[in-house]
Amino acid sequence: MKFKNPPVNSLSLEFLTEFVISLEKLENDKTFRGVILTSDCPGVFSAGLNLMEMYGRNPAHYAEYWKAVQELWLRLYLSNLIVVAAINGVSPAGGCLMALTCDYRIMADNPKYTIGLNESLVGIVAPFWLKDSFVDTIGHRAAERALQLGMLFPPAEALKLGLVDEVVPEDQIHSKARSVMAQWLAIPDHSRQLTKSMMRKATADNLIKQREADIQNFVSFISRDSIQKSLNMYLEKLQRKKG
Amino acid sequence: MKFKNPPVNSLSLEFLTEFVISLEKLENDKTFRGVILTSDCPGVFSAGLNLMEMYGRNPAHYAEYWKAVQELWLRLYLSNLIVVAAINGVSPAGGCLMALTCDYRIMADNPKYTIGLNESLVGIVAPFWLKDSFVDTIGHRAAERALQLGMLFPPAEALKLGLVDEVVPEDQIHSKARSVMAQWLAIPDHSRQLTKSMMRKATADNLIKQREADIQNFVSFISRDSIQKSLNMYLEKLQRKKG
Amino acid sequence: MKFKNPPVNSLSLEFLTEFVISLEKLENDKTFRGVILTSDCPGVFSAGLNLMEMYGRNPAHYAEYWKAVQELWLRLYLSNLIVVAAINGVSPAGGCLMALTCDYRIMADNPKYTIGLNESLVGIVAPFWLKDSFVDTIGHRAAERALQLGMLFPPAEALKLGLVDEVVPEDQIHSKARSVMAQWLAIPDHSRQLTKSMMRKATADNLIKQREADIQNFVSFISRDSIQKSLNMYLEKLQRKKG
Repeated sequence: MKFKNPPVNSLSLEFLTEFVISLEKLENDKTFRGVILTSDCPGVFSAGLNLMEMYGRNPAHYAEYWKAVQELWLRLYLSNLIVVAAINGVSPAGGCLMALTCDYRIMADNPKYTIGLNESLVGIVAPFWLKDSFVDTIGHRAAERALQLGMLFPPAEALKLGLVDEVVPEDQIHSKARSVMAQWLAIPDHSRQLTKSMMRKATADNLIKQREADIQNFVSFISRDSIQKSLNMYLEKLQRKKG
Repeated sequence: MKFKNPPVNSLSLEFLTEFVISLEKLENDKTFRGVILTSDCPGVFSAGLNLMEMYGRNPAHYAEYWKAVQELWLRLYLSNLIVVAAINGVSPAGGCLMALTCDYRIMADNPKYTIGLNESLVGIVAPFWLKDSFVDTIGHRAAERALQLGMLFPPAEALKLGLVDEVVPEDQIHSKARSVMAQWLAIPDHSRQLTKSMMRKATADNLIKQREADIQNFVSFISRDSIQKSLNMYLEKLQRKKG
Repeated sequence: MKFKNPPVNSLSLEFLTEFVISLEKLENDKTFRGVILTSDCPGVFSAGLNLMEMYGRNPAHYAEYWKAVQELWLRLYLSNLIVVAAINGVSPAGGCLMALTCDYRIMADNPKYTIGLNESLVGIVAPFWLKDSFVDTIGHRAAERALQLGMLFPPAEALKLGLVDEVVPEDQIHSKARSVMAQWLAIPDHSRQLTKSMMRKATADNLIKQREADIQNFVSFISRDSIQKSLNMYLEKLQRKKG
């Protein structure tokens, strides 16, 4: 499952909606037991949430967008499929969110590619459920430091931290993803799925039971003048870089 | 405390019952402050749960057996004694369960010996309380991967993962266990015991308050036709290997 | 913020009270965004709790003292300031408690300096909330072993364990602390503070909601004859060492 939303695979509302529908189709088609997430945009796994969905819109739009972000995370995180990430480009924030939901993460060995949750640099805060899965993956202390500083890690550091499971030469990432998938496919589905669910249920339930409150929290936070100003400054900086 | 249930120290109902009684005697005898768990069966620490107790029996037997498994874990995990594991052979599933309850784990440096929770390979699932102690020992991410894939680790990898605390040449494992015991005996019992209890109470309580539900869950799972078939296939494979 | 309570920066009731007042002043002065904790007593970051406050006094005194210890921890742990520890000397028990509340820990590379929670060696037990922050920092397994054995770690081991974030030559510790502070100051305060609070709220709330019970527990424990005897023996041993 290659995703492609040029130029940077940002998670627009439309992309999120289509992604979840595609995933659901795969889940319902019993001939599929696993999926490899990778990008068709050179150098970018996913640039993360689309700031244009979070800037200058109305509260109803923010609420709809955040619900779609939650939905993406819940569907991927709790998927019955084996989900392998072949991270073939930069993977900040929402890109890292997708990678964190996977059962196994392989990253291309290119020091230009970085992965992490850099929300605090942009003046925003990662949601608690994303924080929970980050803590589960790299431990509480490493997560606390990385989240406060908005750190992005090149492949070697991400591997050392446990943020990815394996780093391979860039031209071997897809063959490696397939061989990892073969290894996971050798396990009986029912025991693998029950085990996955047992490991993830508490973290997922934590969001499910507070889902509406989390949406309201996001809407009121993102609607603040100060946050809108921060986003504006950041978007203008991006614009200048491109220009 | 050497256990011996030839040929592979499998945890039969009889073995579990006798083990718990022996442990209780040691606990009540105030001349004992610690115990070393090791095996008298060459090459096998413990082969784990006895599949014959889980195949082709009636629900009452499954319930009795599972209660005995829980009891073994609770007694070892909450023991006031210092419990050191001298893992001198393979230690899958139930063997790993016993090792995980200990205060310190030493493993013989023999690449043929492996340790881990390989339940999912057999088509079954480790119980949540065993999963909890596994997560406490090696962290959430490593546990999620190892449990889904049913991974067994040779000594060097188990050490790197933190699944064991020390790896020593096979002929030194018992002297090493004694010197570790001496180190732990130097700590005042009352502060060590209070500290151990503080560290383990939440995980143990998690089972204690759901104990009956966990038994019912096991009985209904193991009674399924599909699971009985899986066990049958596995037992026949074992049989062929021996034959 | 250099603290100085000669000869060993022990956390007397008076010291704790003054420390919290000083910290509160810094928090309320909007020109300060961060603070570096370090010691002005050669070779000692802090010797920890003052045993004289816990020996031969009445229950009301023990209760007042323990409340002040809780207060120090809560204020530092939840501080809106960036708190960096420059650990320039030994740091057992209460010294380690202060270091654990910080956002970043730098330790001077001197093998004579050690850090850890050695309560069980003295016959007492670290409180549950200190245990929680210890587990968050170095993980459950490492914390369980270190707390049961009352282990103190030299800089290289503390670094490997994740108990400190960085080890530097002793004469560079203050310049290093300033450059780390500069790095943290580059992050917008509001997103950094919200992130810190999200990471620490559960652990802090765990104490806040049981604060009175924790005080009663401490008073009844420390008032026991057996504990007072242990402290007496320990104090006499210290006395002989000095003499």
